[in-house]
Amino acid sequence: MQYDFKQLINDKDFDKIIEICEETPPPSVAELISTLEDSTIYTVLSIIKNIDVKSEIFTYLPIDHQIQLSKIISKSELADIITNMSPDDRVDLYKKSPDEIKDLLTRHLARAEREDIIKLSSYSERTAGAVMTSDYAALLADFTINEAIDHLRKEAPDKETIYYAYVIDHNRHLIGSVSLRELILAPSYLKVKDIMATEVIFANINDDQEDIAKKIEKFDLIAIPVVDDSNVLLGIVTHDDAFDIIRQEQTEDVEKMMGITGYHQTGVYLKTPSLTHFKNRVTWIVILAFLGSITAMVVHRFENVIQQLTILTVYMPLLTETGGNTGSQSATVVIRALALGELSYRDIPKVLFKEFKISFLLAIILALFILLRVYIFNFENSSTILTLDQVAIIVSAAIAIQTISATLLGALLPLIVNKLKLDPALIASPALTTIVDISGLLIYLSIAQFFLNNTV
Amino acid sequence: MQYDFKQLINDKDFDKIIEICEETPPPSVAELISTLEDSTIYTVLSIIKNIDVKSEIFTYLPIDHQIQLSKIISKSELADIITNMSPDDRVDLYKKSPDEIKDLLTRHLARAEREDIIKLSSYSERTAGAVMTSDYAALLADFTINEAIDHLRKEAPDKETIYYAYVIDHNRHLIGSVSLRELILAPSYLKVKDIMATEVIFANINDDQEDIAKKIEKFDLIAIPVVDDSNVLLGIVTHDDAFDIIRQEQTEDVEKMMGITGYHQTGVYLKTPSLTHFKNRVTWIVILAFLGSITAMVVHRFENVIQQLTILTVYMPLLTETGGNTGSQSATVVIRALALGELSYRDIPKVLFKEFKISFLLAIILALFILLRVYIFNFENSSTILTLDQVAIIVSAAIAIQTISATLLGALLPLIVNKLKLDPALIASPALTTIVDISGLLIYLSIAQFFLNNTV
Repeated sequence: MQYDFKQLINDKDFDKIIEICEETPPPSVAELISTLEDSTIYTVLSIIKNIDVKSEIFTYLPIDHQIQLSKIISKSELADIITNMSPDDRVDLYKKSPDEIKDLLTRHLARAEREDIIKLSSYSERTAGAVMTSDYAALLADFTINEAIDHLRKEAPDKETIYYAYVIDHNRHLIGSVSLRELILAPSYLKVKDIMATEVIFANINDDQEDIAKKIEKFDLIAIPVVDDSNVLLGIVTHDDAFDIIRQEQTEDVEKMMGITGYHQTGVYLKTPSLTHFKNRVTWIVILAFLGSITAMVVHRFENVIQQLTILTVYMPLLTETGGNTGSQSATVVIRALALGELSYRDIPKVLFKEFKISFLLAIILALFILLRVYIFNFENSSTILTLDQVAIIVSAAIAIQTISATLLGALLPLIVNKLKLDPALIASPALTTIVDISGLLIYLSIAQFFLNNTV
Repeated sequence: MQYDFKQLINDKDFDKIIEICEETPPPSVAELISTLEDSTIYTVLSIIKNIDVKSEIFTYLPIDHQIQLSKIISKSELADIITNMSPDDRVDLYKKSPDEIKDLLTRHLARAEREDIIKLSSYSERTAGAVMTSDYAALLADFTINEAIDHLRKEAPDKETIYYAYVIDHNRHLIGSVSLRELILAPSYLKVKDIMATEVIFANINDDQEDIAKKIEKFDLIAIPVVDDSNVLLGIVTHDDAFDIIRQEQTEDVEKMMGITGYHQTGVYLKTPSLTHFKNRVTWIVILAFLGSITAMVVHRFENVIQQLTILTVYMPLLTETGGNTGSQSATVVIRALALGELSYRDIPKVLFKEFKISFLLAIILALFILLRVYIFNFENSSTILTLDQVAIIVSAAIAIQTISATLLGALLPLIVNKLKLDPALIASPALTTIVDISGLLIYLSIAQFFLNNTV
């Protein structure tokens, strides 16, 4: 699917543009036109007469396009589009807009929508309140089945939100839920309260967005109702929001594993100021530099060994890298298993035993590799103190012990950090690499010193 | 929510057990009882009389519990449960069972279900065929609205699958879709074909599961129909499967970034044999060891410099770590931005300029840190060749250049790898760390050599 909208506009072939926009799903149209200049997008949008189609396409445009378009679009058209957007998308645009656009967005709205925007935008970021929509179907418990179906027919908002209706009392307390399916299948002489489910899975307005996404996922929900502390129904979070939340949290998890702090929004790498990127990264880089200073102390302590055996420095980086790689692997699988709830503190012995077996196999492979490496390359051994055989033994023994200890540390540390109620991702790659560098250098240089003491 | 099922069983308080199981959502019951022994779970399940509840709870149990239970549960009860499971969950259990259980599972099923299992289990892993369910509502285009609603009432399977019906011709070709909402709102003298949407978003039976999850996410679908190459409707994939797929792919992405190969199934860290873990890890560890050997060559080339200046080895690990950390950060954000479609090859200049600015700030901080470090600790300078000032300049200059070059390499390499149609995750932490170790050592030791040549 690729249309040249610019050409179509030049040719004034508006019918074709309308046809494309009405027959292609709105997310695809939005994707197609989002590569165009804002003025061209504006022209395309003004050609579309169907306000539902227009609003949907607008909704699926990246938020910065939405903001730019809000500036150039005519006031009445903007009001139409905004009014037709779903409340959560509308408030998303509102919250991310600069003040002058905020003003534009609300000025031409009807009072109900204006108040809705103000209210929805007042909830804290990343809570149920911030991601919910006020667009849901609520039924009174006293409604008859027919009244309920009629109500849904007339009042029910767009798309999937019609399929689950939430049952409230006269004070808007959430007391049950009923699906359109159950309403259709029920005998018409019953009332809503006779068929509603009273055990409703719900979220509190202050719940963390990630917990809500997990609930939607766990219970296979299409939507989850959101209530305040007195159980008053305030909105719903739909399953498509859960996808966005999971993607966002997933990005942040990966970034946290690499020592990057801060919240991540999708689609913004290039738009985020360099200073913000810097701030997100600098904390861990400095912490790790402090931690890394310990490696300098370790090496310093063994400087006399190194002075006699500079050949050992040749294999130093390879040794620290191998520890970092094997440790990061075990840390990654354990962190992931913790995140998915597969492991807990009491599994430590089992995890360590498993990782010991895995690392033992890796250690054999790596020790053999390094043995071959030492003999094949056989760098003119500048050391007159140790024989090539001795160098080979020191290096391969060190790499084997380092592989096993780094793997075990990589598995153990996230479990301990988790037990301390901290995020195990803290101990992922960079932090762990630095820690196993320290242990690896200690192992390597201690073995070398032992040989030195027993040879010289 | 915590009940002592064992106590309730001992007390023979079966009514309480039934009450708990029927009033708690099945995923929660499954979670509660999954910590019990299989024989206790079996007892709980046999107490539940409502077969729908029983099947649902069974479905939400971890798959290895399902397999164990299949062995001990009575044949007729097993047949009841299996028959009531949704086809995709049923086939999932079937595919993961050992052969003798496979036999048990199918022997007591009605012919239709048996054939369904065989057919569904024949599709390749990780394709639409492997994750779809055959439980969906199909309507003929010639149905009147009332016939359609009646058909859905009677035939429509469980839960959400009733809300979207797929319209087929007499040869089961997919020709449209219609929602329950549209059926209810339509005047009853119309036919399905008059109101159906003809532009249906669908998946091919051989499509990759990740692409299907992305389609469900992009178009905010509750389910997506799956067709074969001749457009014959074969099944649907529902939104809750999309969550599982996204979680699975997400785990694999993180693992791939740490050089772990292979497919990942959730909930199986402890159950996966050590040998499989080993196989998933060894490939990259060996590749990285080969790559790491280059660091040995670099250091060897400069061995004479090191012999004269062993003080430099003290800061060598800190230097390589810093490069690894800063490079991993930029690589992570770029890989993530690539995965989310934020960046392409032509953005390279923009990305590099941004990363240059970020790394320049980091470089200043780190150079200052290391300057202070050298002067404060002031390890008795064993070198009689270089002054402390010279050591400080060499180390801080090297760390600044290393920070900038590692950050730029971390950003550039994933973009190049992506352009080569390879997965940019290949170049994440471990591979990148090794590469910037090489460049960092070259920078550091070259600077040192320069000083040495111009001092001695």
